[in-house]
Parts: sequence; C-alpha cells; structure tokens
Amino acid sequence: MKLTYKSAGVDTDAGDDLVERIKPLARATAIAEVLGGVGGFAGMCRVPAGLEEPVLVSGTDGVGTKLKVAFATGVHDTIGFDLVGMCVNDVITSGARPLFFLDYFATSKLDVAVAEKVIAGIAAACKESGCALLGGETAELPGMYAPGEYDLAGFAVGVVDRAKIIDGTRVAEGDVALGVASSGLHSNGYSLAREVLFERLKLAVSDHHPVLGDVSVGDALLVPTRLYARHVRAVLAQVDVHAMCHVTGGGLPGNLPRVLPDGLGLAVSPGWSYAPIFDLIASGGPVDPQEMRRTFNMGVGYVFIVAAADAGATKRALEGEGERPIDLGRVVRVADGTPFEERVVWPDVGA
Amino acid sequence: MKLTYKSAGVDTDAGDDLVERIKPLARATAIAEVLGGVGGFAGMCRVPAGLEEPVLVSGTDGVGTKLKVAFATGVHDTIGFDLVGMCVNDVITSGARPLFFLDYFATSKLDVAVAEKVIAGIAAACKESGCALLGGETAELPGMYAPGEYDLAGFAVGVVDRAKIIDGTRVAEGDVALGVASSGLHSNGYSLAREVLFERLKLAVSDHHPVLGDVSVGDALLVPTRLYARHVRAVLAQVDVHAMCHVTGGGLPGNLPRVLPDGLGLAVSPGWSYAPIFDLIASGGPVDPQEMRRTFNMGVGYVFIVAAADAGATKRALEGEGERPIDLGRVVRVADGTPFEERVVWPDVGA
Repeated sequence: MKLTYKSAGVDTDAGDDLVERIKPLARATAIAEVLGGVGGFAGMCRVPAGLEEPVLVSGTDGVGTKLKVAFATGVHDTIGFDLVGMCVNDVITSGARPLFFLDYFATSKLDVAVAEKVIAGIAAACKESGCALLGGETAELPGMYAPGEYDLAGFAVGVVDRAKIIDGTRVAEGDVALGVASSGLHSNGYSLAREVLFERLKLAVSDHHPVLGDVSVGDALLVPTRLYARHVRAVLAQVDVHAMCHVTGGGLPGNLPRVLPDGLGLAVSPGWSYAPIFDLIASGGPVDPQEMRRTFNMGVGYVFIVAAADAGATKRALEGEGERPIDLGRVVRVADGTPFEERVVWPDVGA
Repeated sequence: MKLTYKSAGVDTDAGDDLVERIKPLARATAIAEVLGGVGGFAGMCRVPAGLEEPVLVSGTDGVGTKLKVAFATGVHDTIGFDLVGMCVNDVITSGARPLFFLDYFATSKLDVAVAEKVIAGIAAACKESGCALLGGETAELPGMYAPGEYDLAGFAVGVVDRAKIIDGTRVAEGDVALGVASSGLHSNGYSLAREVLFERLKLAVSDHHPVLGDVSVGDALLVPTRLYARHVRAVLAQVDVHAMCHVTGGGLPGNLPRVLPDGLGLAVSPGWSYAPIFDLIASGGPVDPQEMRRTFNMGVGYVFIVAAADAGATKRALEGEGERPIDLGRVVRVADGTPFEERVVWPDVGA
C-alpha cells in the first residue's frame, strides 16, 4: 500500500474544514485597523493613527493544566477565554490598547468540533477585549498528545504611545493599591489545585463539596479568567495610573513587585472576600497560607496603583463597570534590594 | 504532609533559573526599536520611524513532529531555527521587515539544559533574521507531555509600509517564478517522513542509508529550516517583486496559489536538484510523486515571482547571497475558479 500524509495521521482536509468554520468567528472580531482580504501567509493590522511614537507591546502565554479540567469535563468553550485573558491582561498593564491576537492549537488527532469550540471561546474573548483574532495555527502532531488532549498558546499585541507607557516608575510611598476581583483560579496553580482536589480529596469533576455550595468541582475550576481590558479603559480615561498588575502565577508577591520600584513594597490590608475554591484547596491540601498566596491570585485578578488622592476617582470608574473595588493596601518603603517576594507583606505572618 | 506548588510538579525555581540563562541570549537579538529595561509583563518594541502607513504583519506556527526527531537524537539546538524559520519566512512574504518574535515552550517537567539549548537556537535564528526575541513563555504542564518531550510555538511580527505590501495582486501571465533551495524537509511532512523511514524501512536515527550518503537518517531529518529574510532583503532592494511564497505544508501546489490571482497558475519546469531525503521517502513508502509534491517542499523553500524582464536582476541578487536560483517555471493562464491544487502543473502527470 502506498503511503500518504493522511495515512500517516495528518488530515489536511479536517484542517481545511476547521479553517472554514473559524473564518466567520475571526471576522466578527475585526477592528478598524485590520486589513481584510489580503489572504496570503500572515495577518495584517494597521498601526492606529494619531499616536506620536507608537510602541508595540506583546505577550505570550498558555493556560497550564487548566486544560486537564476542560478534558475531564468535556467543556471546551471557555478555555479560550482563559487563553485570551492570560495574554491580553498582561499586555494592557503597560497602558497599551489591545490590537490583535493569534492562537496556536496543537493536538494529536484533530477533532474539528472540539477545536471549533475552543476557537469560538478565543474569538468571543477577543471581541470582548477589543482585539482582533488575526490568525492562528492548528497543528496536528500524531503521537505527541494523549487522545482527546490538546495544548494552547496565545500571543497578543497592543499599542501605546511611548509617553503614555505605564511602567511603575512613578509609584511612590503612600500610593494605594486597588484590586479588581478575580472569578476564581483564573489559569494559574492548576497542577497544585488538581493534586489537592483529585488526588488528596479524591474528588471528581462532577462531585459537589459543601465548601463550594451548589457549584460542582469541575465548574468551580473552569470559571473563565476575567478580561480586564474594559476596566483598564474606564480607569485610564479618568485617572493618571502609576502602575497596573495582572495577578498570575506567583500571586500578588510574585507579580506586584514587577511594577514597583526597588525599595517600595505593599502593606496588604486583608479582608476581601474570594471564591470558596481557595478555601477548599487550602484546607484540603493542606496548603500553607504563604504557599497559597504565592501560587494563586487569592481573589484579586488585577491591581491598579494610584496616588492616594486618585483612589476615589479610580473606585468610581471601577464601580461604573459594575465592580466593587478591593482596598488592597498601601505602598510602603522597604529596604533597598529587598527580594521580590518579601515586598508584599500581610499583617499576620509577614510575607 | 503539606502540599506545595513544587510538590505538585511545578518548579518555579527552575523556571527562574532558565529565565536568567535566556536573558543574555535574548538581549543579543535586540534591534534598535526594542525598549529595554522596561520590565513588567510584556515586551516592547517601537514602530520603526519613517513609514508612511505602517502595517503590522504577524504569523504563528510550530514545527510539527520534527520535534520527535529532536527527541530521538537528543539534538535540541537547531529546532529553534525551524521554529523561527516557519514563522518569519511567512511574515516576510508580504514584504514586511521582521521586527520581533516570541516563543512558547511547553513541557511536563522542565529540563533547564534542554530548554536553554532550544531557546539558544531560537535566539540565533532571530539574530540571523534581524528580529528581536522579545519574550516567551516556558510552561510546565505535569502530565501533558511524555517524559523528555516538549512542544514549541512561535509568533512573529513584522512591519511594512501599506503602499509596499506584496500580496500577489500584480502577478501577470508570463511572470517567472524563481526558487531558492530548501535545505531538506524544513519543518513539514514529518509525520509521513517518520512513518516511511522508521515504520516502513525500520531505520533508526543513527542508521545510514546509501541514498543519504555519509549523512545519518537523524541528521538528514534534522537539517534546520532555512531563513530567507536576507534573500528577501537583497531582492527587494533591486527588484519590484510581484509575489513571494514560503513553501510549507502543502508544498508548492498548496502554497503558491495563495499568492496568485484567480485564473493564474504556474507551469512548472522541473529539473532542479534536491536533498536525497526526498528520494528516500518517495521510494521507501512508496509515496506517489503527486503526494510528495503536495506534502513536501521538494527542494524549493521560497519563491519569488517577478516580471520576466526582472528575472536577471532577481537572479543576480540571489547569487549575491550565495544562491543558485531555481528556474521554477512561468505564470500561465488557467480557467477562472480552478481549484488551488490544480493551478501548479508539472509537465509529466499534471497537477
């Protein structure tokens, strides 16, 4: 028998079918700057007009083993929100407006229906974030992934005027940190969360647990990463923001110091509420509070640091977006050279 | 025993160690437009000055199961060339100058030494292509990949003045196609190549085969994807190019029509030489010539389509880059609506 690419496990017809299904989804995300109908090998997007010195801001990320929860539940239409959130929420911390997004979807044997759901989620999140889904790659890699599994990577590009880059250099002692709630774990710490819930507590995704109330374990884990582009837009329209932080792997201690000048830290004012999944993980491990804080977002997905005088305006802008902003704490002086993780201090046990 | 993120299989210290090792590699790729020392969450790159209406051109790709050859041989320092080549060679077909690149590296358990080799290859290829390695994500996904395996995705962004976009619309009957040689399979068709060589012919990566001469099977398969940025730069400086094509999955019939207006095709003038690996696959499968042509690049990695009057200047520009350009054929009229794959015609058996 003669061999073909298809007999070797790569079905380019399935890939072409998927491309046709994705096209209208991607088209619906187009922004004014996208050059359509160019065809060819790459997506095209104009640099927005009216910027003095446009700077491109880019980031790439995946969704970690939250994927394993999507596989276990068979729910594939929200993991794309996570992918876009992880990338775009990073890019906007610079003050950049999101422009476009590309995705990489890799699997061993393409299931067109599953891939379409994943990419529909990506497209919906792109639309909500105001960025165009400009392209993507669907890779069929026989033998690389377990049956029914796939990996995802995302790539986002935004643009900001150089003079308006927000990089934390203007953060000063006495500034206040205001948080926007996360929806749950977002897309970080799933290897630990899964170990606690599935290995230690022997729960299944369809199980319920009193701590989670009416929500199943799978649903609690799958809550999509929130998209903060509209919050940032609303605040930047009103307030001269000193720094912004997307709370991802490493939690507050691992992320906030990335935008704080050396010698400054955050004195945390605890007391905000967060999703019950965090309590279930902490008690079920058990996992130390300190380990929880440096692994998970602990209920805070995004942080604005502003002058104390601007706290009210920032809160009002966030309330206008339907949020109840979190009083996260105050910027304080710490010794120069204090390592990252020791610069975010809880009053109980310290860092 | 209390659980930690590390006990759950994610070693953020190893990740931090890798980041430190990568930093100087990435720094060496910086172009004038990169804004250094910004830190924070995302990479920054100015839009180059002097463009009337800058258009961003972006593409994403992986390297397919060529990865499996890297795993089998333990050679990890060239697969990054493949990744950059797959992405950047796409972006430059529009006439865009490459600006920056980001990579996604995913594995179950991070081997810092292996990851460093992979990323060193990426950085070297970025430098050769004139684009900055602006960022990346190293994802540790316990349980997703087989031990010792990893996946790679790349994202490239370039920029071109809108009026100078090359999109094939000016291709006309009588234009000539000039090819630049590929180095081997590049990064496409490996699932079929591996099936033929490893399953049918029962070869191992360390084996030799008379058709391949002194080169082992593994070495013949691992030859890195060529980077065509310098060839494009040299030709565009001399010639008004009508279209360019990166020959990837789908071969010439699957790629060239993407940049040909409807109603035009290519009459192929065969006779160029190519790497012996193609012959070994064709005879070892056996694989039909037609299937070979629509799966592999068959020795042609990149194509320039120019007016017949510009053929000489194009060849001289390529010769200046040390190439022996391939006379690939001539643009001919075909019936309007002729499907993609039937628009590239070999004289022997047709499409």
